[in-house]
Amino acid sequence: MLGSTHGTLTTDFRARVEACGETPRTAVHSTAAPADGDAAELDVSGRPLHSDVPDLDRFFRPESVAVIGASDADGRPNTGITRQLIAWAGRVGARIHPVHPTRATVFGLPCHASVADLPEQVDLAVLLVSDPVPVIEQLADTKVKFAVAFASGFAETGAAGAAAQARLTTAVQRSGLRLLGPNTNLNAFEEFREDLDGPAIALITQSGHQGRPVYTLQELGIRLSHWAPTGNEADLETSDFISYFAEQPEIGAIACYVEGLKDGRQFLLAADRAARNGVPVVAVKVGRTETGARTAASHTGKLTGADTVVDAAMRQFGVIRVDGLDELQDTAALLARARPPRADGVVVYSISGGTGAHFSDLATEAGLTLPTLSAAKQQELHQWIPDYLGVANPVDNGGHPVGDWRGRKIIDAILADPSVGVLICPITGPFPPMSDKLAQDLVDAAEATDKLVCVIWGSPVGTEEAYRTTLLGSSRVATFRTFGNCITAVRAYLGHHRFTASYRSPFDDAPRTPSPSFRKAQALMRPGQQLSEHAAKQLLRAYGIRVPREQLVTSAAAAVRAAGLVGYPVVMKASGPQLGHKTELGLVKIGLTSASQIRDAYRELTDIARYENIPLDGILVCQMVERGVEMVVGVTQDDLFGPTVTVGLGGVLVEVLHDAAVRVPPFGEDQARHMLTELRGHPLLEGVRGAPPADVDALVEVILRVQRMALELGDVLSELDINPLMVLPRGQGAVALDALAICR
Amino acid sequence: MLGSTHGTLTTDFRARVEACGETPRTAVHSTAAPADGDAAELDVSGRPLHSDVPDLDRFFRPESVAVIGASDADGRPNTGITRQLIAWAGRVGARIHPVHPTRATVFGLPCHASVADLPEQVDLAVLLVSDPVPVIEQLADTKVKFAVAFASGFAETGAAGAAAQARLTTAVQRSGLRLLGPNTNLNAFEEFREDLDGPAIALITQSGHQGRPVYTLQELGIRLSHWAPTGNEADLETSDFISYFAEQPEIGAIACYVEGLKDGRQFLLAADRAARNGVPVVAVKVGRTETGARTAASHTGKLTGADTVVDAAMRQFGVIRVDGLDELQDTAALLARARPPRADGVVVYSISGGTGAHFSDLATEAGLTLPTLSAAKQQELHQWIPDYLGVANPVDNGGHPVGDWRGRKIIDAILADPSVGVLICPITGPFPPMSDKLAQDLVDAAEATDKLVCVIWGSPVGTEEAYRTTLLGSSRVATFRTFGNCITAVRAYLGHHRFTASYRSPFDDAPRTPSPSFRKAQALMRPGQQLSEHAAKQLLRAYGIRVPREQLVTSAAAAVRAAGLVGYPVVMKASGPQLGHKTELGLVKIGLTSASQIRDAYRELTDIARYENIPLDGILVCQMVERGVEMVVGVTQDDLFGPTVTVGLGGVLVEVLHDAAVRVPPFGEDQARHMLTELRGHPLLEGVRGAPPADVDALVEVILRVQRMALELGDVLSELDINPLMVLPRGQGAVALDALAICR
Repeated sequence: MLGSTHGTLTTDFRARVEACGETPRTAVHSTAAPADGDAAELDVSGRPLHSDVPDLDRFFRPESVAVIGASDADGRPNTGITRQLIAWAGRVGARIHPVHPTRATVFGLPCHASVADLPEQVDLAVLLVSDPVPVIEQLADTKVKFAVAFASGFAETGAAGAAAQARLTTAVQRSGLRLLGPNTNLNAFEEFREDLDGPAIALITQSGHQGRPVYTLQELGIRLSHWAPTGNEADLETSDFISYFAEQPEIGAIACYVEGLKDGRQFLLAADRAARNGVPVVAVKVGRTETGARTAASHTGKLTGADTVVDAAMRQFGVIRVDGLDELQDTAALLARARPPRADGVVVYSISGGTGAHFSDLATEAGLTLPTLSAAKQQELHQWIPDYLGVANPVDNGGHPVGDWRGRKIIDAILADPSVGVLICPITGPFPPMSDKLAQDLVDAAEATDKLVCVIWGSPVGTEEAYRTTLLGSSRVATFRTFGNCITAVRAYLGHHRFTASYRSPFDDAPRTPSPSFRKAQALMRPGQQLSEHAAKQLLRAYGIRVPREQLVTSAAAAVRAAGLVGYPVVMKASGPQLGHKTELGLVKIGLTSASQIRDAYRELTDIARYENIPLDGILVCQMVERGVEMVVGVTQDDLFGPTVTVGLGGVLVEVLHDAAVRVPPFGEDQARHMLTELRGHPLLEGVRGAPPADVDALVEVILRVQRMALELGDVLSELDINPLMVLPRGQGAVALDALAICR
Repeated sequence: MLGSTHGTLTTDFRARVEACGETPRTAVHSTAAPADGDAAELDVSGRPLHSDVPDLDRFFRPESVAVIGASDADGRPNTGITRQLIAWAGRVGARIHPVHPTRATVFGLPCHASVADLPEQVDLAVLLVSDPVPVIEQLADTKVKFAVAFASGFAETGAAGAAAQARLTTAVQRSGLRLLGPNTNLNAFEEFREDLDGPAIALITQSGHQGRPVYTLQELGIRLSHWAPTGNEADLETSDFISYFAEQPEIGAIACYVEGLKDGRQFLLAADRAARNGVPVVAVKVGRTETGARTAASHTGKLTGADTVVDAAMRQFGVIRVDGLDELQDTAALLARARPPRADGVVVYSISGGTGAHFSDLATEAGLTLPTLSAAKQQELHQWIPDYLGVANPVDNGGHPVGDWRGRKIIDAILADPSVGVLICPITGPFPPMSDKLAQDLVDAAEATDKLVCVIWGSPVGTEEAYRTTLLGSSRVATFRTFGNCITAVRAYLGHHRFTASYRSPFDDAPRTPSPSFRKAQALMRPGQQLSEHAAKQLLRAYGIRVPREQLVTSAAAAVRAAGLVGYPVVMKASGPQLGHKTELGLVKIGLTSASQIRDAYRELTDIARYENIPLDGILVCQMVERGVEMVVGVTQDDLFGPTVTVGLGGVLVEVLHDAAVRVPPFGEDQARHMLTELRGHPLLEGVRGAPPADVDALVEVILRVQRMALELGDVLSELDINPLMVLPRGQGAVALDALAICR
């Protein structure tokens, strides 16, 4: 590390992965109090329905800045940092005030002994000291708005560091200022090119090194307006910056590198704000292989890992998740700069049939729509392209027409087609006599249209004139280096605009007060216990979810009477708390059709329970339910987001195949329906092999009622698992045949 | 197109996609006759077990070359081509002889009026004429070894062109020469850098434009030795070049861009040769979204499309399939140059914990093994790396140590670890004070080890000195631009060496003569018909596949007698040719336990058949079989590869989920077992929810017997579908409960 008299300082290359583990849900409610009544509004689970946008104008564009620990002594790391801060202050027009206990001047600027001696109220204090806590405490009196703490040695280093960070957080909360850091760096004070125009990318990273590739995009002509290196997020977090950037008109896209989210709900609210404003958020989120630390007793609990939940939450709120930093660059750049599409159709245009076929193959596989051009349009293109070449889409010009006046005509004719929203031209090999002219025609055509023109420059070298000057010189052409990144970005671009066009915030409809079911449900809860099947089903009934007619009995005679009431044939099951795997234990008897069978079953079930030493609250005598599609629906607690709702196909095969979809509340009916289409086994709901279509409406209704349970009972219900939920043929509803509920 | 007095000529940018559709299987046997007795050896299906390696030395390095249609007239496309050919001949040291009916000289060289006037026997004739057929006929007398035909207008243009190409093929076969083209180009005569050393990439492409990115790799210091642009493959095909390149010691990897394969078996034999020789073949094969033109009546026939079969065939023979040209570049370059791995372990080393965590996450998800370094190794690393940084793997140096003497020590210490085969250092942002020194240390360390060192240079710009000079200047460091491509290439590298280390050619064990079962099977065949269930099961029995005890009866009384012999309870099924969907039609009765039930069932089944007007050959009375895991095993004809074997899970869910694996014969027991592990539902075979493990050995045996049927009966059996095959608990075997067989 840089090693300093003021302690250990961070650098652009600081390790941070240990610093940013997911915070348990209990921390959700401990964040800063909302500033006004609206923001105080909570949903029925006690989570906020609004978040304030922190006013970070004076953070990014302060009028005056104090540098605490400033230095101009040779060989001190703080000297380099001070120099960069002075340069930055010059660029943004801020007055800068060095603070140091013993120096009279720093780089010729008058230096102040302490923050108490500052000549004016400053907007921003940059803390280059190893222990920021005392300075934060002093700053509390000065009404400074923002502080940045570079020091490392906090939560990223282990338990002692985490305790130090907690003290820092407390000091910040007392002070009224907002803090960036600790363990952050100079990235927020980088130089941004002023000569680039158009919508900009704003960058948020938890590792400076990982943000560098996006920053470097400026050298390719892509504008960057902000960089927020959030460090350990003792106060300001990724979500704060997303919210702020989503309100800045100059910002076309927000690019994030996230290792751990601090607060799930705040992230959803920030993403919701971006979605409402139509601002795309593109994110790398580390943790694909995270081994979920959760242990879950229920079936649905095992179906989804923590990363699956993050993935689902991002999709629900339109956040575009990518894997590589190259995808982050290319996707954010395209989304920042491209205007909304006029159509979803993609046309592939190339000087080689092979290139067109190859690109179209990959694009189609990725889900892009390549419309067949109309006969009239093809005829028009054949004015300039030999008849034996295919122009239906992909359009293959055979090479030669790009060299003369026909090249531009062809591009304009494709772009004029109403089915076309995007023209993609893969140029896999630079061949100056053709590719230089083609590049120029594409740039010129892109200037004259409001449709998207993309080029893939396939040369691995990238020093060619047509690439560096012609293509990168255009802010209207989106230039890629690989087929894959172009396809990823264009899919994200079309998907983003489809998503925002129909986006309706689920927070607007989220329940604020408990339903009438809530009180009934509360009475059934047994803290720390697993409910019996009978009790769990009563819980479902309280929320309007249908269960079979059933009676809990404690004698063979009562069982026979119950069967008469329930109606033959019946199912008999042992019911008791802590009772799972009933089928494997032989504690389920199906298809009983007579009183004698019922008496036999009663004896056998109670014998097994006695033999296995299983406490029972009785024997359930249940209605047999017609065959339908077996599903599972459940509630699982996620450390970051709280209760989540999972739906999957039931049965042994899907237990093996883990075919399930998850959502983070709040979500609407559209998302509940969309969950079902995510299931690989979805066709089963539509009816296969002559089976009738299942009652999907009833299934969706169950999902929404389970969501309501998750929200209202999240604090007392740790897991819920309806398995199976029998979804009957259309119009006949869905019945919960068994349920597992575990109370906190 | 270029437009020429000699007719339509191809260019580097020719469209070709229409030209190279998969050739139907009937064409397989019409390829050139084998040259010696060994190559004439055929497997029991009549397909060759060996292929000759064409001797292409004099094609790539001729001593004398004739250019038919040579020109030096201004403005003629042939003039430019002639100039390039003369330059190329100069580089490879070949004498060049222009041929033109009216010119005395071409570029100062004496020109000959026709091929009859050539002053010597030439190795290679380059045909720049629009109709190559007459020239090929003339060349037959001159004993020229090779010809190249540039002309287009053949199979790529439609039916008339295909007929012209057939005439060309006939002329070539009569002539005794080998032809490259038609519709090919100058790529074979490009200039290759002579200053690069180490193993080279050899390139085979069906589109010149698509090969350009790999060719351009030379500008990054990657050696290329050959480029075979195969064009329409009227004679020489991709497989010929794979075979030839696999025998050249200077070639480290073969990179292919394939739109359509001409002959499936020849491709397998070529890939087999490469696998035996340990030469990696990396291929882009267009057709991911190919909509299989096959219509199949059977279940397994619908489970796999043509591209799935290509994919499986490539994996069987170790061909590494990639999607993008950038992956083709990076993977081929790594495999060409890297020495065999000393261990499978990958260590990620970075100057940022974030970078290390991100890369490790993606690498682990992709299946790379990141071993935890030993406590002793970690202690060693902590001599140079601060204690609070993680060095277990990923190794995070915190940034600072790379700047001094410690940087190289750390790299050497990691490489010295016996668990480490690959060191990967992602450098996401160029920061010269650190990254320049780090790059140099990595290059120096790579020179001193036989282990693989990879660097990812994450800057999108790529003009930096450390990248272009230091990293690209090293032939020992593999440099990538994206995390994704590095992971793809390293996975392929480790996978290739694992594959070839245990590779055993299935052609060595392929059956050459029919089994005793074959004669029995032949007697059951009914050309053009679907066999009855009973006959199909006899076919299975002929090949030693177990079927239930069963009798075919034609009266109720016989049915009762049969039940006595088969043993109660029984299943009764209608049996007849052309009879499918028996269950849906009500033509199956299960669990019959008495004579009266059997009589009722007999009446009902025959009534339904009469009512539905279904011809029956009788009613099957079958043994009930215990429950096991239901599978499907079948044979489907593939246009390119002939009969293929598919295995999948049975039941309605898998009908929906298409969980199946396919193999192209010949394959061994290892591949039969591997098919099962490819199934998502594979755990079902191991036993879930308390079910016993299934008899996988018996299942594997059935797959191998079905392969034998596919090979022996491929010409007369168009489809076979065992559905379900009930795989009983371990040690109890597998029973084919129903079968569908369709004769050609």
